Amino acid sequence: MTTPGTIRLLVTCDDQRGIIAAVTTFIGSHGGNVVEADQHTDAVDGRFAMRLEIERDGFELGRDAFAAAFVDLAERFALRWRIRWPQERRRRVVVMASREGHCLRDLIWRIAEGELEADLPLVISNHANLRGSVEGAGLRYEHLPVTPGEKTAQERRVRELLNEVDADLVVLARYMQVLSGDFVAAWRDRIINIHHSFLPAFQGARPYHRAHERGVKIIGATSHYVTEDLDEGPIITQATLPIDHRDDVRDLIRKGRDLERVVLAEAVRLHLEDKVLAIGRRTIVFD
Amino acid sequence: MTTPGTIRLLVTCDDQRGIIAAVTTFIGSHGGNVVEADQHTDAVDGRFAMRLEIERDGFELGRDAFAAAFVDLAERFALRWRIRWPQERRRRVVVMASREGHCLRDLIWRIAEGELEADLPLVISNHANLRGSVEGAGLRYEHLPVTPGEKTAQERRVRELLNEVDADLVVLARYMQVLSGDFVAAWRDRIINIHHSFLPAFQGARPYHRAHERGVKIIGATSHYVTEDLDEGPIITQATLPIDHRDDVRDLIRKGRDLERVVLAEAVRLHLEDKVLAIGRRTIVFD
Amino acid sequence: MTTPGTIRLLVTCDDQRGIIAAVTTFIGSHGGNVVEADQHTDAVDGRFAMRLEIERDGFELGRDAFAAAFVDLAERFALRWRIRWPQERRRRVVVMASREGHCLRDLIWRIAEGELEADLPLVISNHANLRGSVEGAGLRYEHLPVTPGEKTAQERRVRELLNEVDADLVVLARYMQVLSGDFVAAWRDRIINIHHSFLPAFQGARPYHRAHERGVKIIGATSHYVTEDLDEGPIITQATLPIDHRDDVRDLIRKGRDLERVVLAEAVRLHLEDKVLAIGRRTIVFD
Amino acid sequence: MTTPGTIRLLVTCDDQRGIIAAVTTFIGSHGGNVVEADQHTDAVDGRFAMRLEIERDGFELGRDAFAAAFVDLAERFALRWRIRWPQERRRRVVVMASREGHCLRDLIWRIAEGELEADLPLVISNHANLRGSVEGAGLRYEHLPVTPGEKTAQERRVRELLNEVDADLVVLARYMQVLSGDFVAAWRDRIINIHHSFLPAFQGARPYHRAHERGVKIIGATSHYVTEDLDEGPIITQATLPIDHRDDVRDLIRKGRDLERVVLAEAVRLHLEDKVLAIGRRTIVFD
Repeated sequence: MTTPGTIRLLVTCDDQRGIIAAVTTFIGSHGGNVVEADQHTDAVDGRFAMRLEIERDGFELGRDAFAAAFVDLAERFALRWRIRWPQERRRRVVVMASREGHCLRDLIWRIAEGELEADLPLVISNHANLRGSVEGAGLRYEHLPVTPGEKTAQERRVRELLNEVDADLVVLARYMQVLSGDFVAAWRDRIINIHHSFLPAFQGARPYHRAHERGVKIIGATSHYVTEDLDEGPIITQATLPIDHRDDVRDLIRKGRDLERVVLAEAVRLHLEDKVLAIGRRTIVFD
Repeated sequence: MTTPGTIRLLVTCDDQRGIIAAVTTFIGSHGGNVVEADQHTDAVDGRFAMRLEIERDGFELGRDAFAAAFVDLAERFALRWRIRWPQERRRRVVVMASREGHCLRDLIWRIAEGELEADLPLVISNHANLRGSVEGAGLRYEHLPVTPGEKTAQERRVRELLNEVDADLVVLARYMQVLSGDFVAAWRDRIINIHHSFLPAFQGARPYHRAHERGVKIIGATSHYVTEDLDEGPIITQATLPIDHRDDVRDLIRKGRDLERVVLAEAVRLHLEDKVLAIGRRTIVFD
Repeated sequence: MTTPGTIRLLVTCDDQRGIIAAVTTFIGSHGGNVVEADQHTDAVDGRFAMRLEIERDGFELGRDAFAAAFVDLAERFALRWRIRWPQERRRRVVVMASREGHCLRDLIWRIAEGELEADLPLVISNHANLRGSVEGAGLRYEHLPVTPGEKTAQERRVRELLNEVDADLVVLARYMQVLSGDFVAAWRDRIINIHHSFLPAFQGARPYHRAHERGVKIIGATSHYVTEDLDEGPIITQATLPIDHRDDVRDLIRKGRDLERVVLAEAVRLHLEDKVLAIGRRTIVFD
Repeated sequence: MTTPGTIRLLVTCDDQRGIIAAVTTFIGSHGGNVVEADQHTDAVDGRFAMRLEIERDGFELGRDAFAAAFVDLAERFALRWRIRWPQERRRRVVVMASREGHCLRDLIWRIAEGELEADLPLVISNHANLRGSVEGAGLRYEHLPVTPGEKTAQERRVRELLNEVDADLVVLARYMQVLSGDFVAAWRDRIINIHHSFLPAFQGARPYHRAHERGVKIIGATSHYVTEDLDEGPIITQATLPIDHRDDVRDLIRKGRDLERVVLAEAVRLHLEDKVLAIGRRTIVFD
């Protein structure tokens, strides 16, 4: 549950005595009431992470005043932090897809239904087949095909469009092109991909075909932030489904679609609710 | 994860501003380092609950000193609280069973393996068939049959034995007798039962038979604290399993055993790690 | 997996020696090759059921010739049977919904994608809010409100429309009105409903609210054929999802939507592939 | 469900017209009543497989007579087949383990309970720590340590013991030694291993540690027939469990134990009920 209309504060630092008390006392001393608090200390690298939801009502600080007042505490604990204010504009999500439309349509629905707190100013595809259903939903569709020798130019155009629509998040909804290291670095922790296997099994292409050949008894789907290493980024959500010998590749693809939709939408929701922190190759998901 | 050797503090009160900061500051002011903190505010009844794990090392207070020092804060916020110290003796669990031994044996194993942080000073059964395997594991077994007209006397004897072994928790591991209201009231939130259905479906007797007759496609198991209302106590853990038309009642019973074992053991583990708070008909499980 | 283009034969009878051999030999003697065979004998009532997929290619019989040739064998074993020929027209599905559109839209998608082998000639709703998205998909939408004293007339109009569009199957995709016994009897085993709980738990209204009050740790969804006894019809598919104390009723509703969509679509798919046999209160699902 | 006391016939061949009718007619012509029939045709390699359960009562053939009578049909269709008679002696299972006892104890229980239709004449371990609990259950325990340079001799001794106790099946219940190619070839499709990950993810050593490092959100367990390629054998059963960032490696190990036990026991049960057919790298599981 996310309480509507709250301020969300995320904090990470090396684990230290008194960090929880220090931050919650700071909030309280400025009239803030903490209604949700999650924290975690990673046993491996000793890294501390905390997420607070603070009632807007009664909290005396605005964006600038908060930054000014918080700086001492942040320095003392060497905090990294970010804060989101409820009056801020909704996040702007750009969805990229190739031929397969199930994840894209699912996201369109959930945003239209208000299930995801975001706007969807643009859909980009390297294929033209989904234009009708996207524009039919009243959304902007840009067809940017990837042609031999023109991949760099295409990606440049993608990045221009992201800037043009002031995007906050890119969702690869079965977008089957690899992004350049430059692009990925510039959008670190802001590109979410869906992979149609339970990673790290079946990294790379055609995972359902390989799952069928290998004779596994479960299939899965994985959402993750995109990093330079293909299919190696920090995992946000995963789910699996049992299958049996009667399922051929087409069955795996059909059943997998439902997994992919739900797993990707869940990752996007968690990201938009500021519940995901990527730390190294792993994520903390405060849900 | 529970950090070994930590102090565990559980607190509930009506939701109020500053409660998290107040408690964590109190801990910090006495040299305590909070390594795990979970909290939840119930949206329905406005009840706040918090669980802290505090490093023993450095914390300046002992049991009595803590109680003395905490009293002001507790009164100010009208807190209900309990604390567990790592040097305290292990909890003493008495398991009660009838004929079916799978849950009982599973608990014996897990305690022997150190998976559950408890001692098992006594097993009570209204049948004699499990005596061999219990005593074979070096444990005490009391056979207290329930005969017509002697149910009250049998229960009195059960309660005497619980006192005699200084029990902290009673686990009904497929014990098929109903306990009296008196007993249940005296052991409120300290008796855990396993019911072999996904409650509230199939309350009462022979749930697998009724599940088969009804033609459900999933079966389940439910662990809960025992209250006067049969199968109505606060649920701690539940799990389900898909079945199909090929499964007859014997299959449901067989498959259900694995569910029951895991669901019951998980509830006992959570209780022993002080992670369960029963509030009204519901539980908060800080895991 | 269903092999495209095969003939499907479903047979039920009291369990008898030689029934499998008799039927498969009959098929073979007319040039038919059985590519898929499932059978089940219910241990409770001794009822035998079988489903065959037969290659169209090589099979010498057409619809009328089959009926004429099969009659002897059918009488000898007192068979009930039905057969579907691959050249037959696609089944015509009418979806009924109320205010909530997630199941309806999901079915529209799956039919448009070819995931469900059906046509969707009509959507009926007692509310007007979904008209736009239905007509936007190029489908016919009839708004038949239920007003006090006019329920019977509304239902009569529904049934007229079903006849008018020559419907084979009615899917209640969160249609919140109770159908009359007459209607249900006339459409026996041809109306599929989705109930938003793991039946038999939380029969009746507002299951998510009651699940939250009860404090269950799993939620579910159930698809079933509609019978006169509300929420008591033969269950086709069920699924469940874990929840915890942090999930409020809105979370249950949100998470439940994904369950409902998948559970209902799966039931419709199985029905359309002639894989479901309702026998008494239970179903055999040959998947 | 497996019907007690039935004859089980398994048949594989290249897919051909009339194979089901031919076999079931043959059975019927000798007084046999087929009470369970499963078949599957693999779309990839066109291989047909069938499993029949035939009532003992009324079937006119014994072991030798069956073989003599079936030979013509078997040659005509180039069948590979095996048959199990209900009066045959129970299969003899040898369990091999290393230090970890949870899978071993689980199998001991299930066999003692009659859940698995087998005898357990011998437990072999390369460690001594489980001797007490095995011998305490009245079972024979052989400690065969693996010392440098003596691995071949140790394996020779293992194989002698398997012959000595007339073993039918070897179950590697967390046996952490690699078997030689010779051994594996001689016991093809008769050695079942449990691997503590959802293969093909985390093949090899320390899968829980690697799962934790990778930050996956699910863990799994896989049972498979052992082949020369480590962790590459045909998969029989798999299951998964969700985890989150709060789970450290010890939690994964603890939670994984319950998965491993159930996944391995299920594979052994299916094998003993003659429901598993390994075809290439994959299995058909008729359940």
